[in-house]
Amino acid sequence: MPVATHGSVKGLTPIQIRATGAEMILSNAYHLWLRPGCDVIEAAGGLHRFMGWDGPILTDSGGYQIFSLAALARVTDEGVTFRSHIDGSPHALNPEEAIRAQERLGSDVAMILDECPPGDADRSTITAAAERTARWAKRAVAARARGDQAVFGIVQGGTHLDLRIESARTMVELGFDGYALGGLSVGEPRPETWRVAAATTPHLPSDHPRYFMGAGTPTDLIRLVGAGIDLFDCVLPTRLARNGTLFTSQGPVIIRNARYVADVRPLDEQCGCYTCTQFTRAYLRHMVMAREPLAVTLNTLHNVTYYETLMARMRSAIIANTFASFADAMLQETSMTSEDPACPA
Amino acid sequence: MPVATHGSVKGLTPIQIRATGAEMILSNAYHLWLRPGCDVIEAAGGLHRFMGWDGPILTDSGGYQIFSLAALARVTDEGVTFRSHIDGSPHALNPEEAIRAQERLGSDVAMILDECPPGDADRSTITAAAERTARWAKRAVAARARGDQAVFGIVQGGTHLDLRIESARTMVELGFDGYALGGLSVGEPRPETWRVAAATTPHLPSDHPRYFMGAGTPTDLIRLVGAGIDLFDCVLPTRLARNGTLFTSQGPVIIRNARYVADVRPLDEQCGCYTCTQFTRAYLRHMVMAREPLAVTLNTLHNVTYYETLMARMRSAIIANTFASFADAMLQETSMTSEDPACPA
Repeated sequence: MPVATHGSVKGLTPIQIRATGAEMILSNAYHLWLRPGCDVIEAAGGLHRFMGWDGPILTDSGGYQIFSLAALARVTDEGVTFRSHIDGSPHALNPEEAIRAQERLGSDVAMILDECPPGDADRSTITAAAERTARWAKRAVAARARGDQAVFGIVQGGTHLDLRIESARTMVELGFDGYALGGLSVGEPRPETWRVAAATTPHLPSDHPRYFMGAGTPTDLIRLVGAGIDLFDCVLPTRLARNGTLFTSQGPVIIRNARYVADVRPLDEQCGCYTCTQFTRAYLRHMVMAREPLAVTLNTLHNVTYYETLMARMRSAIIANTFASFADAMLQETSMTSEDPACPA
Repeated sequence: MPVATHGSVKGLTPIQIRATGAEMILSNAYHLWLRPGCDVIEAAGGLHRFMGWDGPILTDSGGYQIFSLAALARVTDEGVTFRSHIDGSPHALNPEEAIRAQERLGSDVAMILDECPPGDADRSTITAAAERTARWAKRAVAARARGDQAVFGIVQGGTHLDLRIESARTMVELGFDGYALGGLSVGEPRPETWRVAAATTPHLPSDHPRYFMGAGTPTDLIRLVGAGIDLFDCVLPTRLARNGTLFTSQGPVIIRNARYVADVRPLDEQCGCYTCTQFTRAYLRHMVMAREPLAVTLNTLHNVTYYETLMARMRSAIIANTFASFADAMLQETSMTSEDPACPA
């Protein structure tokens, strides 16, 4: 899912989002709740009509943003109080209100409110957060008022496999429409991320979507699909596009590099996106150097297409029963290593 | 002509430019000459292929930019020396090199190098600049090496009608493919602008395009078409779009105004552009307030469509012999007055 934090995948019209191959996008309930507000989006007929996107939308609950973006976040069993990162205004959110807000936004998939401990938290903090998330999950289930919106539970537990499995069992008992892995990609070594995912997914039903929140690099996607994950969101392809870092079948291209100044080849010969079929590396570099807004559009179009194409090829390989060999080949092609930066969420 | 200073109409793909109704665009030879350089664009197969635009392109010569943007511009009869506004590097341009550079860019219409005196220059300065522009025009004609590129002369003379008419006669004697009015929209009162244009166009052949450089507001376009002008360029619709000032059939809309926060009507009910048919004022305001790049795209799409539609309607009115009454009605509709800001070039 490309990320449309404020109800827009940065620089792309809905037509252009669709052209990347994306079927589903993610928006941040926290951001939309603060601005423009659920009342505005409800008055506009819901988030789909507001942003002109007729495909599925998943909204996150705001938990992660409150703990990472907002100021003075204070959490109790009742919920969270915090101050807006925009204007410092005080707000409160609890499990019921998180469901209610997402029902008002009208997304297709809502996420429960979870407590997200920092990446370096100790075991007792992580245990307490997972237990509180479990209590909040029960309240979220009880708060559901719409029959036409899926709700996903969130498995916490840090990198402690016993806590993860316990959390997964609790969520499955509550009976959600899909299950997410939260609290990963927060600074732990990448192989640890993949290991935790692989150890957790067997405890989640294979006929329900399994969603890894906030990953990642192409390598992460390949490893995590191998670990049983179906669904991802990450700002990496869009954010790196804005910085001029582009994913290609020959490895990453830093397009502002002087070597591309007169390079009239397509960015990626093997890519069929509008950017690669209509423009040269020289033009893409020029757009970045001249700080042209079109750079954002063309680069984002390409990077998201790269991600969507990678996912589509993995789906095909799974169906053809060739995933293992496909993954091996792709891990070399991407030239990305486990030292890659984690996905900034 | 929407303005593509660096080879991109800011925020629009070529497909989106076309969708506004624009048939022809303008690019700045000065900017492209400095970055990425004529050699790069020539290697890419010319400006059309470089930027992916298959319609006509007019390039200006760089004269106006050198006198307004570059540092330490020094002009002699030979030409101009100046320092780049990007990196301070020293450069020289003369009438022959200006033609040569535009031939290398491969634009459909090249402009001669002219001397652009400041808006508050006295009569003797304006006279000298017009005479030098005339001498440069002769050299430009002699320098032409391509048969497939039109070249337009530029009429100077400030707001002095006798100087304008003298300059027009000189240009017509030299025999260009079209004729431009330069050195206007530089701070003079708008009625003065229109009066000078109306007094000059009768001295330019009616079967050759007459181009007013750097205008303007919708009111300017209506007045200047009435004065016999065929062709315009201006950054106003694109620049105002980026500031969130949008032209509509009900007058200008400052989209960040709080009154639009929950306004779920289209920006302009009478406009058929993508922005007006797919999005609400509330969404457009939200995009601006959240500083989303999509705001640039959607707002620019609309403003350029507004301008192109206005020009198309004036063409129809001229053909139907109803221009005078159409112009009267439109001057009221635009709600723009002669106090409007001049076009920032």
